[in-house]
This record gives sequence, C-alpha cells and structure tokens, in this order.
Amino acid sequence: MPQFSDTELTAAVVRSFEETPDARVKFLMEELVKSLHDYVRKTDLTFDEWGYAIDFLTRIGQKCTDTRQEFILLSDVLGVSMLVDAVNHRARDGATETTVLGPFYVGEHKQMPHGADISANLPGERMFVQSRVTDLAGKPLAGVPVDVWHADGDGYYDSQSPTYETDGPSSRARFVTDADGRLFFRTILPCSYPIPTDGPVGEMILQTRRHPMRPAHVHFLVNAAGYEPLITHVFIGGDKYLDSDVVFGVKDDLVANVEKRTDPTMPDGKKASAPWHLMTYEFRLKPGEGAAPKPLGSRVSEDA
Amino acid sequence: MPQFSDTELTAAVVRSFEETPDARVKFLMEELVKSLHDYVRKTDLTFDEWGYAIDFLTRIGQKCTDTRQEFILLSDVLGVSMLVDAVNHRARDGATETTVLGPFYVGEHKQMPHGADISANLPGERMFVQSRVTDLAGKPLAGVPVDVWHADGDGYYDSQSPTYETDGPSSRARFVTDADGRLFFRTILPCSYPIPTDGPVGEMILQTRRHPMRPAHVHFLVNAAGYEPLITHVFIGGDKYLDSDVVFGVKDDLVANVEKRTDPTMPDGKKASAPWHLMTYEFRLKPGEGAAPKPLGSRVSEDA
Repeated sequence: MPQFSDTELTAAVVRSFEETPDARVKFLMEELVKSLHDYVRKTDLTFDEWGYAIDFLTRIGQKCTDTRQEFILLSDVLGVSMLVDAVNHRARDGATETTVLGPFYVGEHKQMPHGADISANLPGERMFVQSRVTDLAGKPLAGVPVDVWHADGDGYYDSQSPTYETDGPSSRARFVTDADGRLFFRTILPCSYPIPTDGPVGEMILQTRRHPMRPAHVHFLVNAAGYEPLITHVFIGGDKYLDSDVVFGVKDDLVANVEKRTDPTMPDGKKASAPWHLMTYEFRLKPGEGAAPKPLGSRVSEDA
Repeated sequence: MPQFSDTELTAAVVRSFEETPDARVKFLMEELVKSLHDYVRKTDLTFDEWGYAIDFLTRIGQKCTDTRQEFILLSDVLGVSMLVDAVNHRARDGATETTVLGPFYVGEHKQMPHGADISANLPGERMFVQSRVTDLAGKPLAGVPVDVWHADGDGYYDSQSPTYETDGPSSRARFVTDADGRLFFRTILPCSYPIPTDGPVGEMILQTRRHPMRPAHVHFLVNAAGYEPLITHVFIGGDKYLDSDVVFGVKDDLVANVEKRTDPTMPDGKKASAPWHLMTYEFRLKPGEGAAPKPLGSRVSEDA
C-alpha cells in the first residue's frame, strides 16, 4: 500500500512512466515530472496558487482560436520560445540568426510579384525592402519561397482583425527569389507594438509591471529545399524597445540600418512620391533539412 | 543590444520580472522561468516537441467545460495535485489524512437527511456508510457540513452526464453532523474506474502505457468552522488498484475495511433486503482556518 512522503511520491510518478514504449517520450515525461515536482517543493506552492495556475492555463487554452495562439504567446514572453530556438541552433556557421516564429504566422501565404506593395491600403511611411538569399559561401539561391509578414501602423497583424477571413491578407505575402537570389517589395515602415493585452498572457505582463512592447520588425520565413528553414525577423534600427523586447527576440545581427531616403525613384526605377525608407538585408542559409512550421490554425483545430 | 547566449537569456527573462509589485508573485515567476528553461536545456527540446506541447496544452484548455476540468486531471496524473497536498499538510498531528479533490467536485451539494439513499436509482450492491466527525481529542463536532460524492457502478460521476443539468445530482449530497458528530447514509458500493480517456490527458496515459484506473472510493469534504477543511477519500479495502492509483491518491489510513453483512437490519434499524456492505470511518479535524475549494465551474467560466 503506498504511503508517500513527498520525495517518494516523485519517484512513484516517475516510475509510472517506465513502460512508455518510446525512449525519448519516456525521458521527456520523467524530466517533466521531476521539474514540476521540484518547483512545487521549492516554492511550497499553496492551494490558492495551484488553483490560480489551473485557472490561468484553462483561460489561455480557451483564448486560442484558429488565428490566435495564446500558449505560443505565453511561451514567447517567458523566453521559452527563444530558448528552444537557441538549443536547436547552437552552431550557425555564418548563417543568418534565427528568432521566434511568433503567434501570427498563419501559413499559406499568397505569392506576389516582385515590387508589389503588400500594404497598399494602409497609411504609414513607405518602405522599399530589398533582399537576397544565398548559401553560406554567398552563392545566390534561386526559386526560394520567402514568406513575409508584419504589423500595420497601429501594431496589429491582419489575422487579428475580426474580418480577416473575408478581407484576406494584408502586410503578408510570399515572394520567390529570382535567378540572382533576389526579392524586393514595397510596404509601410512597421512600428513597435504591444503584444495582445486582452488575454491572460497580457494580463500577466501588466500585473508584473513588464511592458508589453516589441520593437518594430518584419518577419521572414525562408524555406529552400536542402537548407534549414530560416525563421527570423529583421528589426528596424533605432527602435526604443530593441533592448527590452517583451519576447526576448532581438539579436544584433538581425537589426537593419533602415535609411531614410529622398531620391525621386526607388531601386526598381519606379517613382517615389515622398521621403521613403530603404531596408536592405541578406539571408544566408545553412545546409540541412526540416519542415517549415505548421500554420497556426492546425495547432488549434486538429483533434480539438 | 541584447545578444543572448542561452544562459544569459534565462537571466534576462528573470530580470524582466524585477518590478513585480508582489514579492511572492515575483518569486513564483522567477522560479517558473528557471524551471522551464532548465527543462528545455536539459532535454534539448526540439521544435516538434515544443509544438506538440503547445498543441497538447491548447487541447486540454479547450476540453474544459463547466463540469470538466482537464487541467486538474493533468495535475492529478502527474502527481502534482498530491504533492501540493503534501507540502501543505506536512504535520497532521493525528488529523485524518488528506488526498486530491479531483476534477468532479462541483460544489453546492444539496443537504439530505441522515439515512437517505443518495444512489436510490442506481443498480449496484447496497452500502451503509456511518461516520463521525471529531476534533483531535475525539470530541464530537456537531452541525458540520460534510459533502459526499462518488462514481456510479459504471465508474461515472453524475456531473459527467450530458443531462446532468436537468437530471440533478446522484451519488452526491451534503449531510450535517448531529449532536454526537454523526452522519449516516445509504448508497451503492463504488467500483474502481478509469479517469476519462476521451481527452488529451487520457490519451497521454494510454500512449505511455500507464493504466487509467482509480481504486474504488468515496469523496468527503468536511468543512467545520475553526478547523482546516478536510478534503479526502475513503477507499474500499481490497481493491486491486490500491497500489497503483493513476492519481497517486491512496494513503494507508484512508483505506476502510468495508464489511459484507447479512444482518436483516441496517444500523439505523431499517430492513435490509439482500447482503449489504458496511463502511465505518471517522474523521478527525485539525484546528485551523481556510476556505473550502472553489467549485469547478468557477474555474472555467470566470473571466473566460
């Protein structure tokens, strides 16, 4: 008959996983049990605190929809997403640095022609983005799909709009590199913005007196056959939140010097009507394999 | 500009909570970050595994309803609930042992008169339960509300029925102790039963080749003013799952020797029509304070 002391209890729970067929799953479960139990013991967690945690996790799950992933947001603000990124990208070998996917990747980006304005209907200062995709030796990679997405001038992603399904994408597109590995497009200069604060995660950020801001950035997902998928951002140099990103996603190498320009034409020869900004950034891919991340919707709806 | 190694990242996330006004919340958040990060580092968690965890937690949250709490179930099968119980009840001083609340406490039990049959409409072997509530010195405590609940002969709680709202409670009632601290009622002999296996938690139990069974038991919540609320079970002696309860809730002192009887009358003098079972168990309360647990529904619906 069991009569567990609290350390015997931990051993008994670990032992309960001893028949797990997959060795990796067994290890992950055993370590999870030890980690959770150590936390409860170290903090002498009270019933009220446990109950608060149950409520909090439940509310996070219930806040998730096809276009909102509050658990990814929690992982992001606790630095877990960046740490998973770090332990999976220990040796970059000169490849472009990675950062968090974030909760606003919805997959299935629609391809647009080079030069297209992906924020055509949005107010904001205009920006021309020119980029190139190469291997580690600088050889251009042609025909590579590059998904791009960023927030609007008010800090919202298209997918956060209640009318997203009917409106379709905005500030979100796919470009495919040309024979020289190049892509270019027009958009607006993104601004720094708060993560959503109307859910349990934002509530936690505000209650702990953290600020909810992310520095301005454009998301890129570069996915070439024979290379590791590159999930990253390019940040706008000079942003006041570069040192305190709420999701800890900034790396030096990912900050671009975005220049303010007054030239009457943009790099593709088309006319510019007002001062504009030029973002130039090159992506260097590392040989390897790996699938692109699953789009967000699939994380919520399957089996639910 | 931050450029975190993976250990610097942990320090930065811990530092982000430095302005948290409440010292206890600050401590809990800092330890949570360290614990989660240690887990990711120790396991070298892959993106797929991280994505699986995000899915799993999301599906658990979405499985919760007013009458089902899948996160409590997860806490139970990982031994976390019993550990929280253990660290909050280190010195019993002779008081009755505690165990998990479980996910089927719905609060607001309806008071019934002593001797009532709380499973009147259910098939099963009949059981007479007699109990007494005392303080640590054995002095009877009168007027104490005692909530009782258990599963039916198929292993289901009333609250798991889709028609629970209209059917009302079954095998679930409140009794109030008489002048001698006594209570007694009729019911059926509960059986061992599986936790729900139609959700993510049950899926995890089956995938890891654990069995999903709990040994037969009756839940009791004894809540006397001036005493610690007592949340416990009384287990039926001889059950084959006493040594391997899926939620690790069994303690020696909580196993009752339930006798099979053939006397023609039950202890309250009323006629018995067939062999019946007698459960006798006394509860000893420890002086103290504390609110009874919140009923389940409030954990799901508030702020959701």
